[in-house]
Amino acid sequence: MSDSYADEVIQEVNEAIKSYVECVVPKLCEASYHLFTGGGKRLRPLILVAFSDLLGGRRDRAIKAGAAVEILHNFTLVHDDIMDNDTMRRGLPTVHVKYGVPMAILAGDLLHALAFKALKDAFRGSKYAYEAIDLFVKGIITISEGQALDMSFEERTDVTEQEYMDMIYRKTAALFMVSSGLGAYVAEAEEAVIHAMEYGKNLGIAFQIVDDILGLIGDEKELGKPLYSDIREGKKTILVLKALREASESEKEVLLSALGNKNASKETLTKAAEIIKAHSLDFAYSQAERYKGEALKALSSIKSVRDDRPLKLLNELAELTVKRRK
Amino acid sequence: MSDSYADEVIQEVNEAIKSYVECVVPKLCEASYHLFTGGGKRLRPLILVAFSDLLGGRRDRAIKAGAAVEILHNFTLVHDDIMDNDTMRRGLPTVHVKYGVPMAILAGDLLHALAFKALKDAFRGSKYAYEAIDLFVKGIITISEGQALDMSFEERTDVTEQEYMDMIYRKTAALFMVSSGLGAYVAEAEEAVIHAMEYGKNLGIAFQIVDDILGLIGDEKELGKPLYSDIREGKKTILVLKALREASESEKEVLLSALGNKNASKETLTKAAEIIKAHSLDFAYSQAERYKGEALKALSSIKSVRDDRPLKLLNELAELTVKRRK
Repeated sequence: MSDSYADEVIQEVNEAIKSYVECVVPKLCEASYHLFTGGGKRLRPLILVAFSDLLGGRRDRAIKAGAAVEILHNFTLVHDDIMDNDTMRRGLPTVHVKYGVPMAILAGDLLHALAFKALKDAFRGSKYAYEAIDLFVKGIITISEGQALDMSFEERTDVTEQEYMDMIYRKTAALFMVSSGLGAYVAEAEEAVIHAMEYGKNLGIAFQIVDDILGLIGDEKELGKPLYSDIREGKKTILVLKALREASESEKEVLLSALGNKNASKETLTKAAEIIKAHSLDFAYSQAERYKGEALKALSSIKSVRDDRPLKLLNELAELTVKRRK
Repeated sequence: MSDSYADEVIQEVNEAIKSYVECVVPKLCEASYHLFTGGGKRLRPLILVAFSDLLGGRRDRAIKAGAAVEILHNFTLVHDDIMDNDTMRRGLPTVHVKYGVPMAILAGDLLHALAFKALKDAFRGSKYAYEAIDLFVKGIITISEGQALDMSFEERTDVTEQEYMDMIYRKTAALFMVSSGLGAYVAEAEEAVIHAMEYGKNLGIAFQIVDDILGLIGDEKELGKPLYSDIREGKKTILVLKALREASESEKEVLLSALGNKNASKETLTKAAEIIKAHSLDFAYSQAERYKGEALKALSSIKSVRDDRPLKLLNELAELTVKRRK
């Protein structure tokens, strides 16, 4: 993204994050800040700040709320990486690989609390402080439920596409929805909250579907994490579910020998990936396009636009979400 | 404690906890609720509700805030047990032993978020909502730092008694301080907040010193957890520090062979415990008494007492904290 508006927002958010992630124990601070040093797209704060700017919110509040959602996102990454045994993230060793599981658990817990610290500052004295904290808390509960569902699906072979959609709504889309909703709350634009959240929710679903696609066709270096780890972990992505439903008996045998098999060879994983791609790639992209379309529709429902740059950015983010390679 | 006032508060808090700890994934709910089924003293909510009642606060708000601090406390227990490799708690297998580490991490995260849910409800529309959330967040950050210090001390042999006091202030006393302070905020008794927090802080320090004592002289069944696990984990309690400072060379050898030695035999542990007790037991009890005295002094500074029953309870809790056997 070569957008000076987006660059400006990202820089301000990064500074806010840096000022929040501090504490008296150096190793704990380092572990908590580790993933922020690996880049990341800052999508959630971008969406939040863009909605606030779009609707005329105070920039200082939006930046703090943006830091809150990014810090919260990073807390979930640190803990999810432990739960999912992931060793690489954003091109870096994951926090538990670098600092050990106990310190990674603690760093995640600190980030969780720091997210609330930033949020409370963002909405201090605001008319919508209660609504904002309420939305944030409900979001975290929903995300935890999404992660629990995702883990429980690994052991099941009868997951339906509807269950998958509900799971990714919780696990991924909820935080996008919270981000866009908080942007509208910062701007005290209560009438726009519902459209903003609809944008975030649909964009989040599209984002996760593309994430699942990139786990199959992406470039390891660009992604910053190993290819096919979803297959190895037995993740029931929409691509896997559709492939399992449509595969021939012999294809299904290959799939089942790879899914959730921690010792599967690179050949088996590649063979399984090819089968999944053949059955599901076009379908998954068409689904991502559909949700992107819903996001753009929700965005176009917002009439009280105060600034064109955030509107342009929110349109571009929707397009980029589907087109991205990492 | 055979106090009908305390029993009534505990029952109301337990009902509130039950109503908060719910979610859409049954296994996640079970794991999150697990430790609540093992009893527990509910000390923190008792202190909170007693301060609110003492100062004329709304009972419904106090109960929700009480649920918040107890839920928060349980979140820290679930994660600390993973970090410390503890297998028993309140006479039950710890959450990660029963449900696995990934589910225990997630259950702790959910409890963390649910604590904020209860707190936000408790202070909805209150004059002191911002101050309450601010105090709560700072408390969690302080607790995380305390746990990080505690873990870092395990690898060190040069921990000073001052460092130990700072660590237990963060790890344990901070949440007692938050609880008593929140009680005063519920009652909108701003002038009493400082005395209430002073009570909580000193009581919390006394509580942790006694906890460290009971880890050496307690009854495994009453405690609900194995004796000497602190020694095995290499915890630098004030008793251990004093013993290390005063022990003869041959005693020191025994101590160092037991401290942090995961494979230490029951005999070595018992021998080390005897040495620690001989040097430190009286001293540790006198320290606990001193902090209890400070707590009672802070309590007596509060003049605007609305109800005698909570005052009686807060006095009793201070005495019990030092006298308790579990």
